[in-house]
Amino acid sequence: MKSYNVAILGATGAVGQEMLKVLEEYNIPVNRLLPLASARSAGGTVKFHGEDVTIQEATEDSFAGMDFVLGAVKNGMSRKFAPAIVKSGAVYIDNSSAFRLDPEVPLVVPEINGEDAFTNKGIISNPNCSSIITLMAVAGIARLSPIKSMVACTYQAVSGAGQAGLMELENQMKALTAGEKAVCSTFPTQIALNVIPHIGDELDNGYTDEEMKMQNEGRRILHLPELKVTCTCVRVPVMRSHSIAVTVRTERPVSVQEANEAIRSYPGCRLIEDYEGRNYPTPLDTSNQDLVWVGRVRRDLTDDNALTLWCCGDQIRKGAASNAVQILKRMIES
Amino acid sequence: MKSYNVAILGATGAVGQEMLKVLEEYNIPVNRLLPLASARSAGGTVKFHGEDVTIQEATEDSFAGMDFVLGAVKNGMSRKFAPAIVKSGAVYIDNSSAFRLDPEVPLVVPEINGEDAFTNKGIISNPNCSSIITLMAVAGIARLSPIKSMVACTYQAVSGAGQAGLMELENQMKALTAGEKAVCSTFPTQIALNVIPHIGDELDNGYTDEEMKMQNEGRRILHLPELKVTCTCVRVPVMRSHSIAVTVRTERPVSVQEANEAIRSYPGCRLIEDYEGRNYPTPLDTSNQDLVWVGRVRRDLTDDNALTLWCCGDQIRKGAASNAVQILKRMIES
Repeated sequence: MKSYNVAILGATGAVGQEMLKVLEEYNIPVNRLLPLASARSAGGTVKFHGEDVTIQEATEDSFAGMDFVLGAVKNGMSRKFAPAIVKSGAVYIDNSSAFRLDPEVPLVVPEINGEDAFTNKGIISNPNCSSIITLMAVAGIARLSPIKSMVACTYQAVSGAGQAGLMELENQMKALTAGEKAVCSTFPTQIALNVIPHIGDELDNGYTDEEMKMQNEGRRILHLPELKVTCTCVRVPVMRSHSIAVTVRTERPVSVQEANEAIRSYPGCRLIEDYEGRNYPTPLDTSNQDLVWVGRVRRDLTDDNALTLWCCGDQIRKGAASNAVQILKRMIES
Repeated sequence: MKSYNVAILGATGAVGQEMLKVLEEYNIPVNRLLPLASARSAGGTVKFHGEDVTIQEATEDSFAGMDFVLGAVKNGMSRKFAPAIVKSGAVYIDNSSAFRLDPEVPLVVPEINGEDAFTNKGIISNPNCSSIITLMAVAGIARLSPIKSMVACTYQAVSGAGQAGLMELENQMKALTAGEKAVCSTFPTQIALNVIPHIGDELDNGYTDEEMKMQNEGRRILHLPELKVTCTCVRVPVMRSHSIAVTVRTERPVSVQEANEAIRSYPGCRLIEDYEGRNYPTPLDTSNQDLVWVGRVRRDLTDDNALTLWCCGDQIRKGAASNAVQILKRMIES
């Protein structure tokens, strides 16, 4: 069996760490694993299949001989290293938003538009976490009738802000339980016992860049260039699964029964009809696994051509690391 | 100055306790305060204007001589005592949902339809907490152009489930922080570090009774009998303020500027443009006060006739106790 040299750019962050786990779990045939991080982390080790692997400092010379580079760094770093990765001949599967709207770069959720990955010119973008989870939930419906528009409200976990977000919520919980004041540094105000209806930078139209991703990325992933999406992104005090309440308007009416059937049979989705006595998932139910759980599909009351539903998925896994490794898997399987 | 005999039916619950505080704060001229509760609580005391007042067991004979009865009990108890209250000649301001859709019973948010209170035949209903907060936020827009429909997603505090809800979140936070398992009794699954997208009982159309309240009550309060509302009610681990993300479709397009102006000048509303460097409220900001805070008003991207906004308000206060006392205040001022 062929095996591959795989680098993880940003191997020490929440997503990078999870990429290592998912590579193991999926039994990806890795010949050489190369964990790359900043100079600060270089020299440390990560575990991979039981062995210690030394973290190296990421430089433009790091990628020689690599087949794939999984990116788990921010936009600036991604832009900095992308040319060197492409030049090295590796395929760069990038979790940042740096290239997601570049028409030369496929933006891929393997279950929805996996075939787009093969048009890559060296870079494949991994979509935004809320976009992946929402689009997975509605992709079965889109097969029945094209989606014209969506109104989505998110309930986003703190893991979307990385290790720092996870630590901040944990520390605030501890402080508040001990009767102390919560310290805020990662989020703009207290997140424990609160929700924050603003993620990312605000644009001229009043939406944040995070909120516009669902429309911009949804158009490319669903191959619906006219798709319109109104999104409100809200951070909630949940560790690692995002939830989304979404109203989906289709060209022709789709019945609840048809939609449920489409979701039930959609790869990567799990329709929740009776889970521990509930007909809906919660973020805790969906943590540490890869399926997007969907429930509460019902006819929208304001538009005969619309359905309203609820979905949850693990932000670090299907929202980031697992989707990236699934893209890699699709590439090597073909 | 005339003063009034006021009973609180359910004086020991989260809402009943808050009604006592609000009666004091608003300087309602109370001649006699009568705290009523179950036999279990009778004999205990509540503080009112610094004095201990003995709690009495609620019976059908409790209401003689009362001018107003503020109800903070569940539907069954409300239905049980309402006839005796009406017979006594008192006006019953009821926070339960027992009579909210009874065409003989006005359903009142004083700022929006205060004049409806005067058509009462002995009972006035206090609306659902999420309905009050959402309708307060959009009522200014409704003055500019009638609202045709709304899509609302709620982020509801645990106080909506009363003292038991508040205790459950606090206890779960303590348990999780100590590395122990969270115990669930009030909510169907863990609420700390989680969200639960199901409040109330599910109806045949897939919506819960809680979710239908915004349409059913909104029609009566806004005097828009054709109003359509799709609502997803979600419990979040927040103590006492509800938040709602709402898309509002009006008959004619309303600009963001017009809407902001209408919200800014609407009594009981506060438009958030710069609060501690943020242009949005969070539930923590709005706890323990009566205004509904509104922010992030922006043009909906899926419908030219729609706006999308975010609002927060204290569930126990404007969502329940304060609105009830404001109704009483309106009655005695006229």
